[in-house]
Amino acid sequence: MRQTLKIDDMRYLATGAWILGTGGGGSPYVPQLTMRAFCEKGGSVDLIDPQDLGDDDLVAVVSTMGAPLVFVERMTDPDFAMKPLRLMEAYLGRRFSAVMAIEVGGANSFQPLLIAAATGLPVVDADAMGRAYPMLQMTSFAIADLVNFPQVVADVRDNETLIGRAESWTWMEQIRRKICVEFGSIATTCQAPRTGAEIKAHAIHGTISKAIGLGREVFRARAVHGDVIDAIIEETGANALFAGKVVDVQRRTEGGYLRGTVRIQGMGEDRDSTLEVAFQNEFTVAWRDGEVLVTTPDLICILETENGEAVGTESLRYGQRVSVLALPAPAIHRTPKGLQHVGPRAFGHDLDFKTVFPLQGDVQ
Amino acid sequence: MRQTLKIDDMRYLATGAWILGTGGGGSPYVPQLTMRAFCEKGGSVDLIDPQDLGDDDLVAVVSTMGAPLVFVERMTDPDFAMKPLRLMEAYLGRRFSAVMAIEVGGANSFQPLLIAAATGLPVVDADAMGRAYPMLQMTSFAIADLVNFPQVVADVRDNETLIGRAESWTWMEQIRRKICVEFGSIATTCQAPRTGAEIKAHAIHGTISKAIGLGREVFRARAVHGDVIDAIIEETGANALFAGKVVDVQRRTEGGYLRGTVRIQGMGEDRDSTLEVAFQNEFTVAWRDGEVLVTTPDLICILETENGEAVGTESLRYGQRVSVLALPAPAIHRTPKGLQHVGPRAFGHDLDFKTVFPLQGDVQ
Repeated sequence: MRQTLKIDDMRYLATGAWILGTGGGGSPYVPQLTMRAFCEKGGSVDLIDPQDLGDDDLVAVVSTMGAPLVFVERMTDPDFAMKPLRLMEAYLGRRFSAVMAIEVGGANSFQPLLIAAATGLPVVDADAMGRAYPMLQMTSFAIADLVNFPQVVADVRDNETLIGRAESWTWMEQIRRKICVEFGSIATTCQAPRTGAEIKAHAIHGTISKAIGLGREVFRARAVHGDVIDAIIEETGANALFAGKVVDVQRRTEGGYLRGTVRIQGMGEDRDSTLEVAFQNEFTVAWRDGEVLVTTPDLICILETENGEAVGTESLRYGQRVSVLALPAPAIHRTPKGLQHVGPRAFGHDLDFKTVFPLQGDVQ
Repeated sequence: MRQTLKIDDMRYLATGAWILGTGGGGSPYVPQLTMRAFCEKGGSVDLIDPQDLGDDDLVAVVSTMGAPLVFVERMTDPDFAMKPLRLMEAYLGRRFSAVMAIEVGGANSFQPLLIAAATGLPVVDADAMGRAYPMLQMTSFAIADLVNFPQVVADVRDNETLIGRAESWTWMEQIRRKICVEFGSIATTCQAPRTGAEIKAHAIHGTISKAIGLGREVFRARAVHGDVIDAIIEETGANALFAGKVVDVQRRTEGGYLRGTVRIQGMGEDRDSTLEVAFQNEFTVAWRDGEVLVTTPDLICILETENGEAVGTESLRYGQRVSVLALPAPAIHRTPKGLQHVGPRAFGHDLDFKTVFPLQGDVQ
């Protein structure tokens, strides 16, 4: 099945993917404008079902990596997004048949669209995270133990690197992260090429259209002056964790990531409580009055209470009125192998996975 | 002209190149043993004159990079030296015709010999420094503004990176240095491939045979119980700067380099003086009683007084009786352009070049 994305889909994708980004993936505001301008000039992007890929088709998996705070000043445009793709094709001696986002979160959900706009390649309706995560070893491809190389990392100047082999997914991440820091904590990537067969077996399917659908619901609720947070809960099966006001943000750009914590003072029913949420590009663990409430891989999403727009870890600021939701994680992340890759310990928190959703016997 | 290097040449090269390394390039002890073992089993290495290269021949320029203190524990063998060459050939889709050292100093003068032993490729009698220096932008190729990419950097595990393009020689150095640090401050490299024409025009010629000749003189002087330091001075036109005892070493492995200073208390004629020498892998500036005595690009060499054996920046230690010599720099380093690349300011010292040799009007 192939659908053509239209101009309104761009704003739906921006809003939906920013929610699914759980604070990361970078603000989709500018890439959304870029894609709207492209559509206004008659351009369109084809979204294809992973099942329609040929087993031998070669898919480019792309992203902007780094610390989202930097993305606010140094934006990704189609040229910058394209750069690593061309070096990868030269290295492989083969052209790609389609392009796919590494993560559905925020600006990174637009990365394949920017490339599609420049090349005419179709975008695969899938990603490798079903949300956003900061590290390569957190992809569904890593959880499936697929080959991790080669990967191209490029900057906005004339610097391009290709990591031809890496000992492991973690080594690949460490090497490319050091390069990214040297590039100014922002780089575009073309990751290990994937075959159609690999995408069909190991990507997380339907996530771009899921983000568009979620964004559409948010716009519908706004149009009828409904409760936008309720609409998001209904659309996603989310769990409402907390509502309040941002009263403190500790944030540092460090080692090529944006790390820190946000403290939210409760309002309404939550007025006597405080929620603290840690992040490494994305939100990872939430404590309510010092007790662990929920951890990754549950999607911890902080949204503006007024309009349901997501707040990124780089745009948290004092005084924001926010609602904190948990969305259920993709099934792969809740398996014992998945939790090794994306559970709280993978982020340095000495905690077991704590979910607000029934476990259905899939872990523990 | 092609000469076959024999077993004794290995010890001569080790001793001569260790002197020309001005403290850097890594100890040649182990690669010398590797090459002697290779020769004992009937192996040999051909050394060819740069002028005998065809203009279109492709030459691999190779090195071990990092902090020499690390090389003491993690040695380079033929397999490790070869790794980046093979990725470079795959990337270029072409085979190399010969191999050349980036620098004649220390272990790095053996890097092409290790590869020659594994491949049968001839070694070019030249290098790109005429000594050792820590950074890429200090090569004669950088001074000549040749293209700086691609470059391959590999580690002893299964990690291999290729820097496909770099904005400048300095960017190339910064990117590869960060990768090298991630690899444990040791990596083998295959640098931007050079054509025969480029080698003929821009390499520093005859430096491998010069190092062998110097080592042979040291062994001759030792055999006749002569003054080895005097023999080195006669062979190289060196200037005797100082003689004394090492009384303090400040040394740190930092940012992929070995940095620090050594203090030498004078003995004999120098008994009332102190010499302090700064280093970044190689010796860069010497102060006598607080006054600048000599700076890079003059070669500052610290040798054991007893036997003329060089002391590397990683093997300096309290109590060593040493003689400090200055050897004249290659002409290219004394030009205004050369001094921008390798003068004291290139190492962060806010000093003009100070030489103990006549300037012959070539600078200032």
